[in-house]
Amino acid sequence: MSKIAVTDHPIHSLLASRWSPCAFADRSVDPVELRSLFEAARWAPSSYNEQPWSYLVAVREDAEGFARLLSCLVEANRAWARHAPVLALGLTRERFSRNDKPNAAAQHDLGLAAGNLLVEASARGLSVHQMIGILPDRARALYRIPEHTRALTALAIGYLGAPERLPEGMRARDLMPRSRRPLREFVFAERYGEPSPLLED
Amino acid sequence: MSKIAVTDHPIHSLLASRWSPCAFADRSVDPVELRSLFEAARWAPSSYNEQPWSYLVAVREDAEGFARLLSCLVEANRAWARHAPVLALGLTRERFSRNDKPNAAAQHDLGLAAGNLLVEASARGLSVHQMIGILPDRARALYRIPEHTRALTALAIGYLGAPERLPEGMRARDLMPRSRRPLREFVFAERYGEPSPLLED
Repeated sequence: MSKIAVTDHPIHSLLASRWSPCAFADRSVDPVELRSLFEAARWAPSSYNEQPWSYLVAVREDAEGFARLLSCLVEANRAWARHAPVLALGLTRERFSRNDKPNAAAQHDLGLAAGNLLVEASARGLSVHQMIGILPDRARALYRIPEHTRALTALAIGYLGAPERLPEGMRARDLMPRSRRPLREFVFAERYGEPSPLLED
Repeated sequence: MSKIAVTDHPIHSLLASRWSPCAFADRSVDPVELRSLFEAARWAPSSYNEQPWSYLVAVREDAEGFARLLSCLVEANRAWARHAPVLALGLTRERFSRNDKPNAAAQHDLGLAAGNLLVEASARGLSVHQMIGILPDRARALYRIPEHTRALTALAIGYLGAPERLPEGMRARDLMPRSRRPLREFVFAERYGEPSPLLED
């Protein structure tokens, strides 16, 4: 199944082909591939090159570790994410390591790292579905996450599966066409809300 | 000048070749290219497909608009960013449009949009340098940014320039090799701080 974005302007195929499935194939991911995914995250830019991101990772082959990580997702996400071969939590350090001052870019830069990881996944035929629905306090206790660092996202990683594998209520989500607001609704110039003249041909 | 990342594991060339220069060439960017950059941002994933991001954009050809946007950067960033042909502010809406509840992913998802924009820029031979050093209150007043939306980042966009163009104190920055923490410092398994066994060959 392909859900290539129907774009108004051309974009790179690695970006157009990416989407976030709930259904994953029953196939494990070679650690060689996973290392390249995190290597991609590693080279994201960040404010003062702080690299505030970190990850906790579990693969299904490690039943105990996988169950532990799965238990940090909210119930609704556990329902489908339990079938993914790889789960991860995305964490960010909210203070600069060099001076302990608040890092206003901490969450944003975790997003940049995730963006890189997603592109590398697409390049390797892997799918990723990120979640904000996690239990950060539970994660902090289970993994002894230190103060000023916090789990913000979870990632399910694997090969795309058939939507038929999903419970009926969720199947429609994976089959739905992708949609986005047009550029004129978020690219402005003179004033917030006024479309940029750069959007006109 | 090329600063391809020296990676420990292979990653896609679009990710390995990206870096954030201070020096931009004296060459404008065709609006066709800019539209594709924002189109790439458009197709980023976001929590509940909220797409909380928006952008205010100015090109150097529009002297007044460019000066206005430049005035929203902190002094240290104005020094080099004033030579970029395109400037933008990255904004995020911190509440969900559908229910007005706080969106915990708002900043993270602006980072995802930026990640897509960076990849598209690399694919088109463009460079982007993001900044967290901006004056959000000034931006709010100048652009009438509504409540619950805020400017978080700025982006300088253009073609790579020779570092010789930079003031002496900044030249070294663009010539410096790129560096990152190794994976074992941020990819964990059992516990925060303990490297994942997936990193071992």
